Amino acid sequence: VVESWSFLDTVESNFRPLVVIELAKGTKEETIEWFTKRIVDKKANGGAQLLIKPLVMENGVENIYLVGASHLRLLLGAETVGLVKECSDNSMRTFTYSSRKTFKDFADDNHNFLTMAECQYIIKHELENLRAKNEKMIPGYPQAKLYPGKSIVRRLLTSGILVQIFPLHDREELKKLRHSWYGRVKVGYQPLDDIRCYFGETIALYFGFLEYFTFALIPMAVIGIPYYVFAWEDYDKYVMFATFNLLWSTVILEVWKRICAILTYRWGTLLMKRQFEEPRPGFHGVLGINPVTGREEPVYSSLKRQLRIYLVSLPFVCLCLYFSLYVMMIYFDLEQWALDYHKENESNFSSLMLYVPSIIYAVVIEIMNRIYRYAAEFLTSWENHRLESSYQNHLILKVLVFNFLNCFASLFYIAFVLFDMKLLRQSLATLLITSQILNQFAESLLPYWLQKRYNRRMKKRMCSQKTDRELSIAEQVNMEKEMGTYLGTFDDYLELFLQFGYVSLFSCVYPLAAVFAVLNNITEIYSDALKMCRVYKRPFAEPTANIGVWQLAFETMSVISVVTNCILIGMSPQVDALFPDSKMDLVLTVALVEHLLLAIKFIMAFVIPDKPRDIQMKLAKLEFESLEALKQQVRAFQMQL
Amino acid sequence: VVESWSFLDTVESNFRPLVVIELAKGTKEETIEWFTKRIVDKKANGGAQLLIKPLVMENGVENIYLVGASHLRLLLGAETVGLVKECSDNSMRTFTYSSRKTFKDFADDNHNFLTMAECQYIIKHELENLRAKNEKMIPGYPQAKLYPGKSIVRRLLTSGILVQIFPLHDREELKKLRHSWYGRVKVGYQPLDDIRCYFGETIALYFGFLEYFTFALIPMAVIGIPYYVFAWEDYDKYVMFATFNLLWSTVILEVWKRICAILTYRWGTLLMKRQFEEPRPGFHGVLGINPVTGREEPVYSSLKRQLRIYLVSLPFVCLCLYFSLYVMMIYFDLEQWALDYHKENESNFSSLMLYVPSIIYAVVIEIMNRIYRYAAEFLTSWENHRLESSYQNHLILKVLVFNFLNCFASLFYIAFVLFDMKLLRQSLATLLITSQILNQFAESLLPYWLQKRYNRRMKKRMCSQKTDRELSIAEQVNMEKEMGTYLGTFDDYLELFLQFGYVSLFSCVYPLAAVFAVLNNITEIYSDALKMCRVYKRPFAEPTANIGVWQLAFETMSVISVVTNCILIGMSPQVDALFPDSKMDLVLTVALVEHLLLAIKFIMAFVIPDKPRDIQMKLAKLEFESLEALKQQVRAFQMQL
Repeated sequence: VVESWSFLDTVESNFRPLVVIELAKGTKEETIEWFTKRIVDKKANGGAQLLIKPLVMENGVENIYLVGASHLRLLLGAETVGLVKECSDNSMRTFTYSSRKTFKDFADDNHNFLTMAECQYIIKHELENLRAKNEKMIPGYPQAKLYPGKSIVRRLLTSGILVQIFPLHDREELKKLRHSWYGRVKVGYQPLDDIRCYFGETIALYFGFLEYFTFALIPMAVIGIPYYVFAWEDYDKYVMFATFNLLWSTVILEVWKRICAILTYRWGTLLMKRQFEEPRPGFHGVLGINPVTGREEPVYSSLKRQLRIYLVSLPFVCLCLYFSLYVMMIYFDLEQWALDYHKENESNFSSLMLYVPSIIYAVVIEIMNRIYRYAAEFLTSWENHRLESSYQNHLILKVLVFNFLNCFASLFYIAFVLFDMKLLRQSLATLLITSQILNQFAESLLPYWLQKRYNRRMKKRMCSQKTDRELSIAEQVNMEKEMGTYLGTFDDYLELFLQFGYVSLFSCVYPLAAVFAVLNNITEIYSDALKMCRVYKRPFAEPTANIGVWQLAFETMSVISVVTNCILIGMSPQVDALFPDSKMDLVLTVALVEHLLLAIKFIMAFVIPDKPRDIQMKLAKLEFESLEALKQQVRAFQMQL
Repeated sequence: VVESWSFLDTVESNFRPLVVIELAKGTKEETIEWFTKRIVDKKANGGAQLLIKPLVMENGVENIYLVGASHLRLLLGAETVGLVKECSDNSMRTFTYSSRKTFKDFADDNHNFLTMAECQYIIKHELENLRAKNEKMIPGYPQAKLYPGKSIVRRLLTSGILVQIFPLHDREELKKLRHSWYGRVKVGYQPLDDIRCYFGETIALYFGFLEYFTFALIPMAVIGIPYYVFAWEDYDKYVMFATFNLLWSTVILEVWKRICAILTYRWGTLLMKRQFEEPRPGFHGVLGINPVTGREEPVYSSLKRQLRIYLVSLPFVCLCLYFSLYVMMIYFDLEQWALDYHKENESNFSSLMLYVPSIIYAVVIEIMNRIYRYAAEFLTSWENHRLESSYQNHLILKVLVFNFLNCFASLFYIAFVLFDMKLLRQSLATLLITSQILNQFAESLLPYWLQKRYNRRMKKRMCSQKTDRELSIAEQVNMEKEMGTYLGTFDDYLELFLQFGYVSLFSCVYPLAAVFAVLNNITEIYSDALKMCRVYKRPFAEPTANIGVWQLAFETMSVISVVTNCILIGMSPQVDALFPDSKMDLVLTVALVEHLLLAIKFIMAFVIPDKPRDIQMKLAKLEFESLEALKQQVRAFQMQL
């Protein structure tokens, strides 16, 4: 029944599949017909004016559709989403169709002016903004209510008719990217611009941050090695190391803002205007009038949400924190038991046994983090936040607090209650290394192995011996639709955040932490790259101008680390020996130094500009131009009088 | 020679003088002719299209001109400067001439749609934006160079041809304002909206802040009184007072942001777009190309400026700080001498003598602050900053650092080196009260008295017994042009800032400080109002959306006060007595409490939203509307295809 409509170019051969829509099996014909009609319908009629084609499978009809768009449609879409591209004079400007000739590499027949990721982003945006007109419900599904202005795709998703929408991989491009990214053994930077073209800004920025952070840790690691090799335990050397670390961690976080500005200026996202935020897909409520837009849409009382947050979520989080502390105390019992065992039968085996409790604890921490993550997601989604950003903030806050306590509580306890530096060092090392190994395994290698096994079975079933490149589009879609979905950079940043904690909080006790972090991050780059290219479906590109709330999280961690390091240094026997008469003077000196360091940190953060001078100039230039243009308009109008 | 041109309305009677221009005596005829011609010339010819009239004085020609503008011209100017006014539906929108009918109270014959202060601001903006075309110099003054785009008025000012530009008072309005502001003895709020209409947003916001701050201090003062009356010295009461103060000061600063948003939303400045900043009048350099605007204008190497800042200004400031500390040591010698004297001859006179050093020191501090202020202004202007904002930031930083040390160094020394709480209390009280009396006297009462005497002499010379209302425009101009110029809110905010320091830094030692601060502020409101209405020329209105860098300064002070108060409480004998065995525990507890308080402060600052919910909603609504309008445009364009 469904055929491919087209609107601007009618030549069938022009159709390039960009995005895949999978509908549930057994979706009613009338629904499919209505939905595809809306997708291809003209903008003037409230459609998305895209191209759609059903995918013909060997084994009969599956409800899978390929979506594309004409070149002109994509250019107009680029204007709608506010894409920023480079002009012929190397400045970055918001793309408009009328000024298209001024942009670099633009030509009417150059279909590569927009990258494939950008085209897919535009199609996703257009699909999500396909809104109900007068429909009261989705045809064929009376329980799936609609109201004017409701996003059709979001309603289809929440009512289960639409299984998934995902962008297609470009096998050619992916192969090139894989090769330049991790295909050959080489020392050098990642191809961030290529990653951005293929996966979008959010993911490219994560890899940029990961790379930058690894480089930034190298000085710490290099300085840390002699401490381990020569077993330096002098007071002055430790103080120097800790002071360096504290100032260094401030500097790297400030410099990252500048590098981030350089990257996102080049990618155009620094200049991109924020779009008006629509309610998130899962948001529900009774129909009412939105006071901001004046439209009829579901509203949910803020009071009810507050009640859910403070009466359910908060107690639950506290309970989880308590449970985490309880598990910690069990760990200390185990630790004591292992120590006793070692004392009773001193052997190689028993000294190995000393590490077992820490390893078990590290595994338990990882498991608890993951379970808690699910609970936090469930709770935050139950809190029914209207906006995705508010949902994300509440989720991140919940997860960060628990992860911080879960990972570091035992270390704080060892350091500031037990005062056992030897145990602290051992525990820190075991936790850090175990969690890194577990993460690498669970996040990349295991999924990679599963995916590979699945692919092999799939190919066998299809009885084809073709290589990836020769796969037909149907086979490619069939393979990709079964791949896992990449759930965003949250877990990756969280891992880095905890690593930063291990490295900085107790850096003066275990200088080797930075070395392990660097080693881990180098393999992390490769395993994350593998994960993106091989394991998961291609994610939609998401324009972003910075790493958002993670910047704040890292900065908070570096403030806390000033406090912990100062206390640790103050507690060391070498420093203690410097104040033989009065412990009072010692404590006062430590407190003074801590305040000085904190003051220096804040002043440094204030003094170092967030954007490099040349980016500032370019932004000022753009602002000046737009103000001038406005003035010209006013002047032209005044002259008419 | 010069007559009044007009452009849109030719009716002479329509001319309402708004702004006065005073040229130097003996200015060449050709210069006057050229300048007035440029002012009245059409926009299309690069003129300002304003009205100008020479002021005919009884005692012959003085080079004084009155500037006005037609009603239409002012409306167009309001669009140019981006004024935000209230619409008929109570929302605030940027005024445009084409949408004028939608604004509240707009009618073509309603000449009060724009307030007089707004009209004067528009005229000032238009005069300052009167730019040279092809003139290489000011006609008649070959040494006063011009280049295309240079502001003519600024060049005339820097070369001394233009003596001053100031807006005229409106005797009627001023009388009404005076009456409602301080004319009758009443308890109640100030007429902030009227002040804003007459003096503009910057000044109204200062009075708003002064009033708010006074109200905010009342709880502190009320709680502080019983401490004095009953001479409470219990540990727990002090801790409670200090803790309350610390949290309270955070709350009041956060709440101020919200109140400020409410005020400036109502006044329209919250929504006003920032104008592109032109070089400040005093900026000089060799002609070059500005990389941002691409125009030829003076440029000054950033390196040279940095050298001046770090090699001259910084050492000078350090020297001044050293000198201030030196003076402080002399004060302590004096204090010692007074104490010895009191011990030798105990009498009423000698016990009075105990206060003399503090009073002398307070006077010296005030004098040093004022002298330093001039030096700082000279130095900062010599640093040759391109933008007014950068000049202001450097000036404020210089002045704040010195004032802070100059005022509080002795108190810190007494508290944390001498550990003399009795002297601290006495010194704090003397400094606070003396500086408040001096300030009130030097800032308002003395100028008021001088102005009054001058006015009386003037009137006598004019041999007229007319009241203010009956003065002719010539007499009014003649009187106002000799009045002092109000130099902005800097000194007023600085005074409040130092007062905040006296109140909060050592609040737990001297709870009565808040009482004096409240009393001072109540009279300060009246004396500042007197100063604005009676002593100074009317200042030009300046739109502003917040109190700028002062918010940061006050917040920093409140962070410092957490530290000082915690230390003071830790040092009190009552707290000392709680830890009889271990001073160590005492210090650790104090440090812990301090960190907790700081953490709570930062969390509170983070959690309390900067704008009230309804303002947020209104802003979101405006943003939504402008995005919708943009989308409509794009859609309309796409439909044409």
